[in-house]
Amino acid sequence: MSRKIAVFRKEHFNAAHRLFNPSWAMDENDRVFGKCNNPNFHGHNYELIVKITGEPDEQTGYVMDMKVLGDLIKENVLTQFDHKNLNLDTRYFSKVNPTAENICFVIYDILREKIDSKFDLQVRLYETERNFVEYPA
Amino acid sequence: MSRKIAVFRKEHFNAAHRLFNPSWAMDENDRVFGKCNNPNFHGHNYELIVKITGEPDEQTGYVMDMKVLGDLIKENVLTQFDHKNLNLDTRYFSKVNPTAENICFVIYDILREKIDSKFDLQVRLYETERNFVEYPA
Amino acid sequence: MSRKIAVFRKEHFNAAHRLFNPSWAMDENDRVFGKCNNPNFHGHNYELIVKITGEPDEQTGYVMDMKVLGDLIKENVLTQFDHKNLNLDTRYFSKVNPTAENICFVIYDILREKIDSKFDLQVRLYETERNFVEYPA
Amino acid sequence: MSRKIAVFRKEHFNAAHRLFNPSWAMDENDRVFGKCNNPNFHGHNYELIVKITGEPDEQTGYVMDMKVLGDLIKENVLTQFDHKNLNLDTRYFSKVNPTAENICFVIYDILREKIDSKFDLQVRLYETERNFVEYPA
Amino acid sequence: MSRKIAVFRKEHFNAAHRLFNPSWAMDENDRVFGKCNNPNFHGHNYELIVKITGEPDEQTGYVMDMKVLGDLIKENVLTQFDHKNLNLDTRYFSKVNPTAENICFVIYDILREKIDSKFDLQVRLYETERNFVEYPA
Amino acid sequence: MSRKIAVFRKEHFNAAHRLFNPSWAMDENDRVFGKCNNPNFHGHNYELIVKITGEPDEQTGYVMDMKVLGDLIKENVLTQFDHKNLNLDTRYFSKVNPTAENICFVIYDILREKIDSKFDLQVRLYETERNFVEYPA
Repeated sequence: MSRKIAVFRKEHFNAAHRLFNPSWAMDENDRVFGKCNNPNFHGHNYELIVKITGEPDEQTGYVMDMKVLGDLIKENVLTQFDHKNLNLDTRYFSKVNPTAENICFVIYDILREKIDSKFDLQVRLYETERNFVEYPA
Repeated sequence: MSRKIAVFRKEHFNAAHRLFNPSWAMDENDRVFGKCNNPNFHGHNYELIVKITGEPDEQTGYVMDMKVLGDLIKENVLTQFDHKNLNLDTRYFSKVNPTAENICFVIYDILREKIDSKFDLQVRLYETERNFVEYPA
Repeated sequence: MSRKIAVFRKEHFNAAHRLFNPSWAMDENDRVFGKCNNPNFHGHNYELIVKITGEPDEQTGYVMDMKVLGDLIKENVLTQFDHKNLNLDTRYFSKVNPTAENICFVIYDILREKIDSKFDLQVRLYETERNFVEYPA
Repeated sequence: MSRKIAVFRKEHFNAAHRLFNPSWAMDENDRVFGKCNNPNFHGHNYELIVKITGEPDEQTGYVMDMKVLGDLIKENVLTQFDHKNLNLDTRYFSKVNPTAENICFVIYDILREKIDSKFDLQVRLYETERNFVEYPA
Repeated sequence: MSRKIAVFRKEHFNAAHRLFNPSWAMDENDRVFGKCNNPNFHGHNYELIVKITGEPDEQTGYVMDMKVLGDLIKENVLTQFDHKNLNLDTRYFSKVNPTAENICFVIYDILREKIDSKFDLQVRLYETERNFVEYPA
Repeated sequence: MSRKIAVFRKEHFNAAHRLFNPSWAMDENDRVFGKCNNPNFHGHNYELIVKITGEPDEQTGYVMDMKVLGDLIKENVLTQFDHKNLNLDTRYFSKVNPTAENICFVIYDILREKIDSKFDLQVRLYETERNFVEYPA
């Protein structure tokens, strides 16, 4: 069979973050980011769904072994983000606001380098059950 | 960054409805709509997921503040539908059958007017965990 | 083995209802029941979990066949409540306010008569994911 | 209204399977498929979401009656797969490895023949909450 | 009716925390608390389920209005914990380690003072979907 | 604090099984166990929730480290059951019918030996989202 199919793997990480624009005054940050601007941080259980699209291998019937994909996500994303402060403990958000949008771009860019270019990649990130993002749209 | 990303907001409302075609006889409605044609109505916990696609603002990192989007959905959709009888209490379904498909079109049309045209909009509506619809497809 | 164990079966029904006390004036009902007092009704996807406690049969290893329990719930509860208006279509709530508490008592009483007295019975009823009740407590 | 909308129906089945390539030696199968290559089989609660895209009928407001779609899935898919051993009890996987990808292709092909060609069809299959596939991608 | 029944209300809050014993050396804290001892904090989406047991009021059919209970939880618990750093922003965990167990005790004690003593109270707290606690046991 | 509290850990395993009584004829097994009596087996994604009740340690604030409990479940239960055929690959169900009730008793007995007797233990096992058991009741 040489039909394209999408495969999805769900992982999760728990992290602290603070939303703010360092070039703004505190009250402007409060106005725009509200309680998300708490200088002492708050946090989330992030749920991550990685979608890979391609043709299954004829010998295995797998687009990609889900265990291999899970390990790749753990090694490249979760080790950097899980039980971390996104603003302070990672190099990605020292100057970039860790909104769900920006976290999703960062995870996409990390994974895009690690996943064979013959596959399409899409990343969905849940900040809460009610707020989530997806890239590419 | 000027990459397009989708952001999603989940809201819910509880409503009563009845499915029938007023131009048909009762037994024809029973044949087609079965127990959904109960003249005394039945009801659902509707789950609504609104998807907005656009480029994040460079200053905030947000496509749209999810609190703003949530409030916009509450003011324009939930105030009209939550704890209401869709057939009797809203102006949308006096002549239109409140199937999940038609409720989804109505919510899309309400929100499309309120959301900046630079953003793409998609609405998913769960009538139950097992039956749901999405527009545009 | 002659050890007591609990078995649970989950079923669901969709119904319309209105909460009010017919001996009160409309504004008193509005004050107490708010939007739940909509005279045109609203509705829910009710989730029902029935718990039976007893010793498994030595020949089968079942406390009770879950298919048998599911059918018993369907025949005795769902046929009366699913896709119905609880206030108008059932004999239970013509004079009793169909709060989650009262619906749970009614379902318990219906099932208690149908389930062998050697088993303990408990009923949990979800009106929404966030509001639910359980009897006996 | 003549706008295209997608409708989704969720069903489930429980099945046993074993992943392996019969042209490979046992240790090669173990290396690639790990514990999924257990010769005595393991199993899953598969969740199936069928998506149909089309224009709602003007008389009913339905793209397709979800009960009709549910029955069609039951008759054509669940009767063949539910409580079955996918490798031994079905004709589809005697020579095809029952990966989620291949099961999804088979279900798509079965349903595509039964669903009016005016509708688009997409099938999503959850093997577990964390591993799932979707065709067409 | 004068039968006791339990009613449950689900709320949620997002918070940052760090687990450690200030009287221990850093490496002892690392050994016991692992990545939960990150000095820069991590965080969670906490789900809170409050259970109240009592007899429904004869006039309303409510043990307690779920909206009233929800507001009481918001005013007394969520305003203190939501989008906060549990260690730094609350007075409860300056000397008490904010494990799920200790957070649950604190929430119970806060609510026990606010809820009529005629009702029994139980609190369940989910730190993640896989780790949760309940008091009293 | 020396108050008893319950802590819960959720794990999962995927397994094949067949329900039947070897001392019965095939048609009697079919009559009682229906499609669960498929001689080629079927399978499930089992969800396991282990509840431990005790007093938190004063130094850690933990009843039990959830990572320790998770590892204990993995080593003693999941290694024996995950991706296995319960009837053929385990020593527990060669003569005992692997109903959810009996699997739950076996898991309880395995864990009861490994968990300090100062703690109370309860095991909940989901065979599907709709069918589950709990011991002790």
